[in-house]
Amino acid sequence: MKNNFSALRTKLKEIAHLNTAMTALMWDQEVKMPLGGAARRAETMATLSGVTHDKFLSTDFVTLLTELKKNSGAKKFDQGQAATIKDIWKTYEREKRIPKKFIEDEARAISAGQTAWQHARKQSKFSLFAGELTKLVELARRKADYIGFRHSPYDALLDLFEPEVRTQEVSIMLDELKKFLIPFLGKVFAAAKKENFSHDIFSGNFPLETQKKFNREIATKMGFDWHRGRFDESTHPFTVAFHPEDVRITTRYSQADVFYSIISTVHETGHALYEQGIEPRHFGTALAQPASYGIHESQSKLWENMVGRSTGFWKYFYPRLQELFPEPFGGISLQDFYNNLNAVIPGPIRTEADELTFNLHIILRFEIERDLIEGTIAVRDLPEIWNAKTKEYLGLTPKNDAEGVLQDIHWSQGGFGYFPSYILGNLYAAQLYARASQEMQNLETEIALGHFEHLLNWLRKKVHRHGKKYDPQELMMQATGEGLRSSYFIRYIEKKYADIYQLKP
Amino acid sequence: MKNNFSALRTKLKEIAHLNTAMTALMWDQEVKMPLGGAARRAETMATLSGVTHDKFLSTDFVTLLTELKKNSGAKKFDQGQAATIKDIWKTYEREKRIPKKFIEDEARAISAGQTAWQHARKQSKFSLFAGELTKLVELARRKADYIGFRHSPYDALLDLFEPEVRTQEVSIMLDELKKFLIPFLGKVFAAAKKENFSHDIFSGNFPLETQKKFNREIATKMGFDWHRGRFDESTHPFTVAFHPEDVRITTRYSQADVFYSIISTVHETGHALYEQGIEPRHFGTALAQPASYGIHESQSKLWENMVGRSTGFWKYFYPRLQELFPEPFGGISLQDFYNNLNAVIPGPIRTEADELTFNLHIILRFEIERDLIEGTIAVRDLPEIWNAKTKEYLGLTPKNDAEGVLQDIHWSQGGFGYFPSYILGNLYAAQLYARASQEMQNLETEIALGHFEHLLNWLRKKVHRHGKKYDPQELMMQATGEGLRSSYFIRYIEKKYADIYQLKP
Repeated sequence: MKNNFSALRTKLKEIAHLNTAMTALMWDQEVKMPLGGAARRAETMATLSGVTHDKFLSTDFVTLLTELKKNSGAKKFDQGQAATIKDIWKTYEREKRIPKKFIEDEARAISAGQTAWQHARKQSKFSLFAGELTKLVELARRKADYIGFRHSPYDALLDLFEPEVRTQEVSIMLDELKKFLIPFLGKVFAAAKKENFSHDIFSGNFPLETQKKFNREIATKMGFDWHRGRFDESTHPFTVAFHPEDVRITTRYSQADVFYSIISTVHETGHALYEQGIEPRHFGTALAQPASYGIHESQSKLWENMVGRSTGFWKYFYPRLQELFPEPFGGISLQDFYNNLNAVIPGPIRTEADELTFNLHIILRFEIERDLIEGTIAVRDLPEIWNAKTKEYLGLTPKNDAEGVLQDIHWSQGGFGYFPSYILGNLYAAQLYARASQEMQNLETEIALGHFEHLLNWLRKKVHRHGKKYDPQELMMQATGEGLRSSYFIRYIEKKYADIYQLKP
Repeated sequence: MKNNFSALRTKLKEIAHLNTAMTALMWDQEVKMPLGGAARRAETMATLSGVTHDKFLSTDFVTLLTELKKNSGAKKFDQGQAATIKDIWKTYEREKRIPKKFIEDEARAISAGQTAWQHARKQSKFSLFAGELTKLVELARRKADYIGFRHSPYDALLDLFEPEVRTQEVSIMLDELKKFLIPFLGKVFAAAKKENFSHDIFSGNFPLETQKKFNREIATKMGFDWHRGRFDESTHPFTVAFHPEDVRITTRYSQADVFYSIISTVHETGHALYEQGIEPRHFGTALAQPASYGIHESQSKLWENMVGRSTGFWKYFYPRLQELFPEPFGGISLQDFYNNLNAVIPGPIRTEADELTFNLHIILRFEIERDLIEGTIAVRDLPEIWNAKTKEYLGLTPKNDAEGVLQDIHWSQGGFGYFPSYILGNLYAAQLYARASQEMQNLETEIALGHFEHLLNWLRKKVHRHGKKYDPQELMMQATGEGLRSSYFIRYIEKKYADIYQLKP
């Protein structure tokens, strides 16, 4: 049996190497590829993806996997091996249930969907996208049927991104959160009329070379390992791991806004630290994979928000920022800087949202996509539903479809079930950070001294090194002693903004 | 039958896409990869190469190919299809004859050979490499036996790089060339004592950003298509084509020597223009592959030497060079610049050789590797043979093994048969350039005006667009009306250096 696992391991390594090649092509496409290479790059990636798929469903592979699966209950395997067999089996069961014809149909619908979405968005006319979106929703429902589910078809889709998490749990948790956030936001808005914090006081002219230098200093200090990674530029910031020893982040710069790059650098470095914290010797097994999209997002959000927008972080970095950019920061106190950096300003666009309102943007999307997949609302009613919810949650109405229901790319790519990862990331992050602060009483002082390694080591031990050994719920149990709850995030938000906006309890 | 070709074509495209992925990994390794990624990158590339090999020898592929091959005499195919079947069949016949065990043995010997060579070179002690080299020669001879040959085992190896070219032809041609070069070099050396031309008069301090700008200007003017390519830096300059729409060149810079980058940029751009001149629609067929290593080298050498070291080229670019670097070029006339740029200075190292002595370095290597493979000389005698030939051809003796027999990496990689490509490239280039000059009487005037497109279009029509439709000899027949001869190169060299060194006829 042990020997059979080692045979499976060899095959998994081969698949992992093919995935590495795929990642390299993807990274190159976003960062380096000349424009003329685009059309053929798509074909090369499709070819490679077909080769990987064939390996995965080859008779050899399936026979081996099936035999291992049969014996996996018998305690013959260590925890990592058992987790690997479980994870691969689950993927295999899913893949074999989805007919090839469906995958082709879906790929075509996504391609048509993206074109229609771009067109509709440019014209700011939802009706130009409604037909394609209807098809995409229909396909997502069929996909859920193929995969199978107990209660809601949305469960099957959610599971693709957040294993073993159910629609009902998420609904309850986000409902709780919403019930706190909406009135709390009301209080903040009322206070904001007086305080009027805004990023505008940071506007200036920031030479790109100096910005790049500062961003690299931040990533280095956070613990990014340059020997096993790179840092480049791309239109949309992202992180990819070829494997734990080659992890690449990107950011983008604006001459007029220094935070445009800094915030995304801290966020992507958070992702990268997770990938670099995975143990290379597990390459090809479940232990070398991130636990979920939500857990991945928890690592970026924890660094971005709990650390990167904290007083401690800026106690350490603000003097350097003032040194590099005396104009405008020379004349702004740390306290003013911190308050304005955390300004809450409601707006219609998710990607421009502050730390607080961001969550309401996600809750809105989750509710809509859940209801679409469960069939309780119809595509044609989306603009109306979207605008009503925006009004209810954020107190404003989008000017048009482009800044409303058409703003995000996700649905046009058939990515139903992904949005919750963003907010689950925030919830995981707050719970992990609360636990870390409890175990390391002087954490904030250490951060203010530029000692990020304590936090990093804690995350390495509690999260990174386990890879996908546990599902997200189990991982949270191991790391914090309890399953995910929204209360940590609520307490964190409450305290932070009560301080900034001097709210009365 | 047509339908069967289209089935083959589909499979060939798949293989070509896998090769594209391999090229992307290779480029990334040289240009972007963080050091920590090196060990696993080698594994990823080995995996991908195994997948490609399996596709190539799969039952499906072989059955299809065999059937097409059977019918390929019957004029059912157009020229491109016939060339593709012929080329793939040849590769297949070779691949299937070489046992897998041999490929593994060879890979191990190459790995050990490289380590031993690096060690021996550092210590400058050939004896430390002799054992591994003996094994590598033995393996190369065995490989030739597997592949099969009529006259010399070296034929089989040469054919890997220069299809359908025979050892005997090359021997005769290079012998002729040597008989001209050695006495001619004597005349040049005698004259050089008086003239004393040297690159030293160009030494200075050249800011890298200005150099980069100038190098990009040169590549652009030569016709490099930036929409379908990139230009980066790497330790050893090289060109790779992911496919004709994504062609990448690299160069390297020295602050003290502006020609360190310029010459390699012109050379690599020559390679890149060939790759960009291949018709994208032929992707996956023989028409989308370069004709041979020698023909590839002819394109880089033609641009590097016949164009890039010519008076015409510098009539156009010298004013710009003077403008960018008034120190030292402001005080040097075009004639002095040209003469010193083309200084002939004999030295022991191939990679530092001038345009003239470079050829004797190659002839020496060709003779030695041919004799090694034919078994007429022994590995242990190499240092003595190397030094004696260096003395005879270049009039000097290497100080030690490191600057003598150990200087090149090729043999430690088992690359026997590659060296002739360098000099065949020069011969092809001279013959092509002579023909182009005959067909376009005002070619040099056009070049002096910065109109490189006439030459490029001629090369596109005569060489680039054919890919591997013809073998090198046929290609030369089509392009110049005769097979390869050394006389064009001899005449070119004779005229060029007689002018520079004012030799009497």
